[in-house]
Amino acid sequence: MLTGNAIIGQSGGPTSVINSSLCGVIQTCAKYPDKIQNIYGMRYGIEGFMQEMLIDLGAQRPEVVEALKTTPSSALGSCRHKMQEQDFAPVLELLKKYNIRYYFLIGGNDTMDTIHRIEAYCRKEGYDLVGVGIPKTVDNDLFATDHTPGFGSAARYVAMSVLQAGILARDMKKVDQFVVFQTVGRSAGWLPAAAACAKRNEEDAPHIILVPERPFETERFLNEAKAAYDQHGWVSVVCGEGVCFADGSPISATAVNDRFGNKEFGAMGGTSAAMVLHQLLTKTFGWRGEFQVTESLQMCAADRAMPNDIQEAWACGKRAVELAVEGNSGVMVTIQRDSNVPYAWSLGTAPLKEVALGEKPMPDAFICPDRYFVTDACLEYLRPLVGELPEYVRLD
Amino acid sequence: MLTGNAIIGQSGGPTSVINSSLCGVIQTCAKYPDKIQNIYGMRYGIEGFMQEMLIDLGAQRPEVVEALKTTPSSALGSCRHKMQEQDFAPVLELLKKYNIRYYFLIGGNDTMDTIHRIEAYCRKEGYDLVGVGIPKTVDNDLFATDHTPGFGSAARYVAMSVLQAGILARDMKKVDQFVVFQTVGRSAGWLPAAAACAKRNEEDAPHIILVPERPFETERFLNEAKAAYDQHGWVSVVCGEGVCFADGSPISATAVNDRFGNKEFGAMGGTSAAMVLHQLLTKTFGWRGEFQVTESLQMCAADRAMPNDIQEAWACGKRAVELAVEGNSGVMVTIQRDSNVPYAWSLGTAPLKEVALGEKPMPDAFICPDRYFVTDACLEYLRPLVGELPEYVRLD
Repeated sequence: MLTGNAIIGQSGGPTSVINSSLCGVIQTCAKYPDKIQNIYGMRYGIEGFMQEMLIDLGAQRPEVVEALKTTPSSALGSCRHKMQEQDFAPVLELLKKYNIRYYFLIGGNDTMDTIHRIEAYCRKEGYDLVGVGIPKTVDNDLFATDHTPGFGSAARYVAMSVLQAGILARDMKKVDQFVVFQTVGRSAGWLPAAAACAKRNEEDAPHIILVPERPFETERFLNEAKAAYDQHGWVSVVCGEGVCFADGSPISATAVNDRFGNKEFGAMGGTSAAMVLHQLLTKTFGWRGEFQVTESLQMCAADRAMPNDIQEAWACGKRAVELAVEGNSGVMVTIQRDSNVPYAWSLGTAPLKEVALGEKPMPDAFICPDRYFVTDACLEYLRPLVGELPEYVRLD
Repeated sequence: MLTGNAIIGQSGGPTSVINSSLCGVIQTCAKYPDKIQNIYGMRYGIEGFMQEMLIDLGAQRPEVVEALKTTPSSALGSCRHKMQEQDFAPVLELLKKYNIRYYFLIGGNDTMDTIHRIEAYCRKEGYDLVGVGIPKTVDNDLFATDHTPGFGSAARYVAMSVLQAGILARDMKKVDQFVVFQTVGRSAGWLPAAAACAKRNEEDAPHIILVPERPFETERFLNEAKAAYDQHGWVSVVCGEGVCFADGSPISATAVNDRFGNKEFGAMGGTSAAMVLHQLLTKTFGWRGEFQVTESLQMCAADRAMPNDIQEAWACGKRAVELAVEGNSGVMVTIQRDSNVPYAWSLGTAPLKEVALGEKPMPDAFICPDRYFVTDACLEYLRPLVGELPEYVRLD
């Protein structure tokens, strides 16, 4: 029986529920005192660990640990450090120094790669270490899991924003003719797709959803915008931040370079896909409108977190500890969907190695072939994660 | 006794609670059947009225009317039409045609000007019309009222966003060093000021608040950003969209024109103050960071509406009808603050003419003289309107 201390870290961008996973880990470690003597937290992930920035999580007050469930962002602090060859030896020394035998990280595929490599290095060096990963990312592009904790809450933020801004755009169409909402998610279209949950009727926002899985074609986009305008008198566009032209160049950077001759401006990150679309619609049609770039607000809006997302995140943390004390190493906890209606889920596992190498773009069946929108199959997948949205009335 | 029909319209930008005022008007009109026979709604404000786009509000189902309290945006549709001389005669004909004797508009100072001029024209032409205004604007720059319905909910959206993004920025400081949040509010600083409610401790966001009432000085801004970074390792900046240099030119437009030599880009509205500040910090210090431009999301986030704001908006609508049936014409309902702790308010009136001409910038006593921030007096004013914000825990 492996006995020693445990450590947990958080990596990459935060979510509204990543601290709920942390809570699940801390609370569950306390249930196995014969195997896990104490639990440490890494400040700022592996980067802070290498500087011995540790927190004694076993000494935290229970009410603080419990309140982590509803506290957004990464309570331990985060990093984006990519492990270098020369990092492994000092990491092993620290693991020995603190007698750490259970190693947990909450993160995305880069994070799973980090655990996988540390665990493999320790095995090679003859140091017994159990490493288990806990999934997290608002992007939802993690391989082997039905969805990631954090996605549902971010998706709800997106859908709620597009719903509310759509009602406003409808009522203001005599003044402004369009609204563009940009989501995070890099090359994955899950978050822009989630906006579709806001739509109940044909007129409702959004009218156009641009996912990075499909190339942006200017003419086609303008035609669809014009069609929506002709039908409703206003247009709602949702775009992923990473939407690209067919040649792979992002519409954010390219457009600024091409249209305004200022390379540096785009390169400094001072532009965005939504801004480019805004300008395209303004210049082409003479419409007035606005672009909404909420960025990391999507990752930390705890007041809009999905209760089920909080619960799943906590359960993933709990299961990670259970797997570890049972001797399972080199795996990530996964979420399996058992049923859509009523929504039911259970937990599984996937090898860290596969998760580290894989990714999960939106399947073809979720993206409309003939227009910039998502399919009913996609909506069936999304709805249980986004949850019920508020009903707003319309006058008869 | 004046007997006839009533009409109500909504003008300018929406808020999360403007429909609550509409609800108050509809529900109260029904209490005076001897004076108000029916109540009509103007679609798209005075612009729609002139096209006879009317809704029979008396015929709406009571549950729809009641649900207006929690439905954001302008259920009647809005406009930004400025009355021209040639508009008055046709408006009077329509008032006669529908036997409208009670005229209500919910809006800002332009709207109050519209009521005032229509009421004056009718008096000159010998047509008895009672006109009463109901205040509304997220900008909170309306003269003669302690605050405007709609401001508290928008202010809460701002404070909530800055609170959550601040926690995220703190936890992510090893990756990104700053975050800039831009508010709406044009030349008024009330909304950026509201972000200060997010701050409980010295390290908390925001560190810098830029209100349009004070000129932007580049060196001073950079010095304050550097000081916050040196102290905390990250910086939170909140800026009003209308922040200007000392010469009155907005930092959004000027910076793009000056720095990137592209006049059209700024003129098309494709830039923003936050983006300019983002670029300034990136170029000067080499920091990574993000800008958040949420635009009208601040005006329609009904799930973040302040309950008291909803109630005040409803009460303003109710009082407008009461004033009208008592024969008071040419006034706007105002909110008076009777006490900060516990928060207590009552209703008053102000002449439409004064409201139309006046505005309410932030008083000097609310703005720090020596740094880009607001004073304790400002916070005392803001806190009851923004309400309690969630408590998030920190590990010990």
